[in-house]
Amino acid sequence: MINRQIILVKRPEGMPGEDCFKLIETSIPSPTKGELLIKTLYLSVDPYMRFRMGKGTSYISAFPLNEAITGGAVGEIIETKSIKFKKGEIVTGDLLPWQDYSVLNNKEVRKVDTKIAPPSTALGVMGMPGLTAYFGMINIGKAKAGETLVVSGAAGAVGMIAGQIGKIKGCHVVGIAGSHEKTEYLIKALGFDGAVNYKRKSFKQLLKAACPKGVDIYFDNVGGEISDAVLKLINYKARIVVCGQISLYNLSKIPPGPRREMELLSKRALMEGFIVMDYRDRFQKGLLELSEWVMKNKLKYAENIVEGLENAPKAFLGLFSGENLGKQIVKI
Amino acid sequence: MINRQIILVKRPEGMPGEDCFKLIETSIPSPTKGELLIKTLYLSVDPYMRFRMGKGTSYISAFPLNEAITGGAVGEIIETKSIKFKKGEIVTGDLLPWQDYSVLNNKEVRKVDTKIAPPSTALGVMGMPGLTAYFGMINIGKAKAGETLVVSGAAGAVGMIAGQIGKIKGCHVVGIAGSHEKTEYLIKALGFDGAVNYKRKSFKQLLKAACPKGVDIYFDNVGGEISDAVLKLINYKARIVVCGQISLYNLSKIPPGPRREMELLSKRALMEGFIVMDYRDRFQKGLLELSEWVMKNKLKYAENIVEGLENAPKAFLGLFSGENLGKQIVKI
Repeated sequence: MINRQIILVKRPEGMPGEDCFKLIETSIPSPTKGELLIKTLYLSVDPYMRFRMGKGTSYISAFPLNEAITGGAVGEIIETKSIKFKKGEIVTGDLLPWQDYSVLNNKEVRKVDTKIAPPSTALGVMGMPGLTAYFGMINIGKAKAGETLVVSGAAGAVGMIAGQIGKIKGCHVVGIAGSHEKTEYLIKALGFDGAVNYKRKSFKQLLKAACPKGVDIYFDNVGGEISDAVLKLINYKARIVVCGQISLYNLSKIPPGPRREMELLSKRALMEGFIVMDYRDRFQKGLLELSEWVMKNKLKYAENIVEGLENAPKAFLGLFSGENLGKQIVKI
Repeated sequence: MINRQIILVKRPEGMPGEDCFKLIETSIPSPTKGELLIKTLYLSVDPYMRFRMGKGTSYISAFPLNEAITGGAVGEIIETKSIKFKKGEIVTGDLLPWQDYSVLNNKEVRKVDTKIAPPSTALGVMGMPGLTAYFGMINIGKAKAGETLVVSGAAGAVGMIAGQIGKIKGCHVVGIAGSHEKTEYLIKALGFDGAVNYKRKSFKQLLKAACPKGVDIYFDNVGGEISDAVLKLINYKARIVVCGQISLYNLSKIPPGPRREMELLSKRALMEGFIVMDYRDRFQKGLLELSEWVMKNKLKYAENIVEGLENAPKAFLGLFSGENLGKQIVKI
């Protein structure tokens, strides 16, 4: 049985290219006691993986060179040596290798409840992106009815869920995205009150017009000049949820920007960075509420599915050019 | 009875000069029902007044031109038409005119308890600066024993109290100030664990050496490049209390600086602006705790007293060149 695998062969400087990755063929061992043989069904590509390709950060280690990339994935158990799992069960994990088959310890995966939503959603609305949106909105954004929420990267996996949670909480929700197709989707399919294409020349004016009462919560996935425009509109006691800064991840040197403190001071506003893993002990609670919203159809999700393990690098790189609408997934 | 008064005659661009102010002579009306005739004893000069000299901000109105400057002051009642106050009592208020005598409604002032500390402290440790340090440290800084607190503007009225509250809470406290005299004072008189002169060439290295465990709380009165150096040292879950940005107040255009979001994200840190008036409903609780600390000698205070109403503008301008050690007060 051939096991294809994607390994990291080069650390990028600036924007990564496909030459950082290599598809190799390898073999798979048999599972021993407590282990599972898993056939990979779906891989997740996520912006944070850019840090792992480089030197890593204080909170996340770098991918080792010449080893398989690891990340969120969903698979099916095809052989089990653990009493906790049965053959045919669908499982997910956050650090699974990019390969056709994996032998994993039973502690590295958890079961996916396919009665709530299809297996792939374990990588999106019912997984890390959903939980990221949930904890950012609930614990930092603290959305209240009648407030205005702006979401950058609003057509991405996290952004579209954050915006919909704002709608569930009764906010006026405005999304920022990079194409007309995306802004139309946010308004027509997801019920956003407004959506602005940041590539338009009149972006600043359009954003201001979409937020007639100013901005109370800014859920930021993007950073940079898009944030500069939003920050100009914040209200007294605004909350700025710093979830991602995708516009800056591939810059070898981040150019300076407006100093935020004067704005935060004059508006008595809060800006807080977080990562979803900080809330690990509350994941069950978050997933329960997300699943209720999904089942009641209050929370819709979109997936952008690319077929084939060999296309995983391209799908990952597409995140930085904004090619995905919704959660970018690779189907194996 | 001649009543000297200081009025605003010009709004400054950039750094204000003494030519923005004018000393005039006027007369005082007699108090009518509910009013008090008050002899001014002490005036407070505070950095935030710079905003009032200009166009004001969203939360504080501009001083009207050709009218008396108003601010915190302490006075003695020399005539009363209010049953709530007796002649000879010491009172304070936040919006009292810069003049020798004032006729004020009894609601514009509150009594000063001179048993706790001398009357002038109503403008410092037992007044707005003390409360500012208190609420910033307690509600945003949330100092815990063993953490490292860095305070910028540490030899100023707010900074030296914020640092001492950090010591009371068991923190390793490092102050940043602008002279050797000030850093010596912070360490020797106030018990700071470290103090660094930001004017020294090796400032960044000295700051890093003074914070061997990184920075958990940054109480920022200053902003700009001093903050850039502190932000490089922040720890996981750091809190940045944005209390003031005095280094930027007199700039007609604020130069760009490092984008904070990447740092806040990677450290999951929080940055929050506040002004003391946001906590108005909790002032009594704050003053009670501050007074207990003062009486137990856990909280020391320093005052820099200038004599003469005519010197109030100069004392105010001195704030921006860092001339004061402790609370800058004008004695009338």
